[in-house]
Amino acid sequence: MVVSASFAVQSKGYCDVVDITDKVELEVAASKIRNGLVTVFVRGSTAGVSTMEFEPGLVADLQRTLEKLIPSNVPYNHDARWGDGNGFSHIRATMMGPSLVVPLQSGKLSLGTWQQIILVDFDNRPRRREVQVQVVGE
Amino acid sequence: MVVSASFAVQSKGYCDVVDITDKVELEVAASKIRNGLVTVFVRGSTAGVSTMEFEPGLVADLQRTLEKLIPSNVPYNHDARWGDGNGFSHIRATMMGPSLVVPLQSGKLSLGTWQQIILVDFDNRPRRREVQVQVVGE
Amino acid sequence: MVVSASFAVQSKGYCDVVDITDKVELEVAASKIRNGLVTVFVRGSTAGVSTMEFEPGLVADLQRTLEKLIPSNVPYNHDARWGDGNGFSHIRATMMGPSLVVPLQSGKLSLGTWQQIILVDFDNRPRRREVQVQVVGE
Repeated sequence: MVVSASFAVQSKGYCDVVDITDKVELEVAASKIRNGLVTVFVRGSTAGVSTMEFEPGLVADLQRTLEKLIPSNVPYNHDARWGDGNGFSHIRATMMGPSLVVPLQSGKLSLGTWQQIILVDFDNRPRRREVQVQVVGE
Repeated sequence: MVVSASFAVQSKGYCDVVDITDKVELEVAASKIRNGLVTVFVRGSTAGVSTMEFEPGLVADLQRTLEKLIPSNVPYNHDARWGDGNGFSHIRATMMGPSLVVPLQSGKLSLGTWQQIILVDFDNRPRRREVQVQVVGE
Repeated sequence: MVVSASFAVQSKGYCDVVDITDKVELEVAASKIRNGLVTVFVRGSTAGVSTMEFEPGLVADLQRTLEKLIPSNVPYNHDARWGDGNGFSHIRATMMGPSLVVPLQSGKLSLGTWQQIILVDFDNRPRRREVQVQVVGE
């Protein structure tokens, strides 16, 4: 069985980290599938999906680390060509990746206690994001 | 239903970024599966798979960023032991990861408009890569 | 068909890299599923899963690279708030990601010859990790 669902997330951009665990769990419950795989996928090339212990300290740490590794204030060829000013957003998104797959067992996502599913919006402006939840199983 | 397919990609190596979206879509269409999951997986330990807006500016930005973060011109223990000279290629591949999972809905990959599936070949020579496309669904 | 399995791994922490390929293969064989998807997922927010050519040189290279990119010896807000001292572990885990999906074809994982599945434990102490293996297919 395959059930496709999606939900919208309003982000502030600039490496905004949003805990989407509850929204994913709602779609999984609605799917009636109890065992299988839950794929969380964000459309677009300037956002990513991963897991983290969602607390303000780590959110700030992730933002600071990404600013150091893939800075927003250095020149990008993407910006020289297209004037978008969000070259850094694209590179961060490609490195994190747009999808996450979580096992589903007896109706529960097999996450750890302190492990939430996060959407990270790397773009340089607020965005309304569409997150796909694909549930495959029985 | 499960359908396994694969295709070959000739890369130039050295962080060559190849847009493989069309090839993945061809295999998905041939599978006759309309809803489910499409897993794209590259065999080998010096290549990765992700998504990006495929345009020359961002390709150059990704290459420059990876050269800064995981340089090719510093010593690697792998090279001291094995003489391959591609320690940097391995580390980049491990960080990006070899697989990507994309939801399939009504016969279409749920990608964004400016979001292509890319193979990145980090090796220090041209390579012929085998990319697996595994389609699971109904 | 869906089969859920799991196994435990004892790690030393501090970016300990553990080759878990054999353990994953054992669970896949026990599942009797021959074609489909194998998802490897680690519970918790301070470990990650990926692939690499598992040899001591590359293990050291990965550890050195991560120490340079996401250092253990700089201040983290997470540590200031919670006193765990493992802020660096969390950020590394979020960047690598907790899951890997590998195609399963005729009973074999479609890995390359020099490509092993690794668990990387980023935490700042030894940990007993639970790794989920979810096999979906036929």
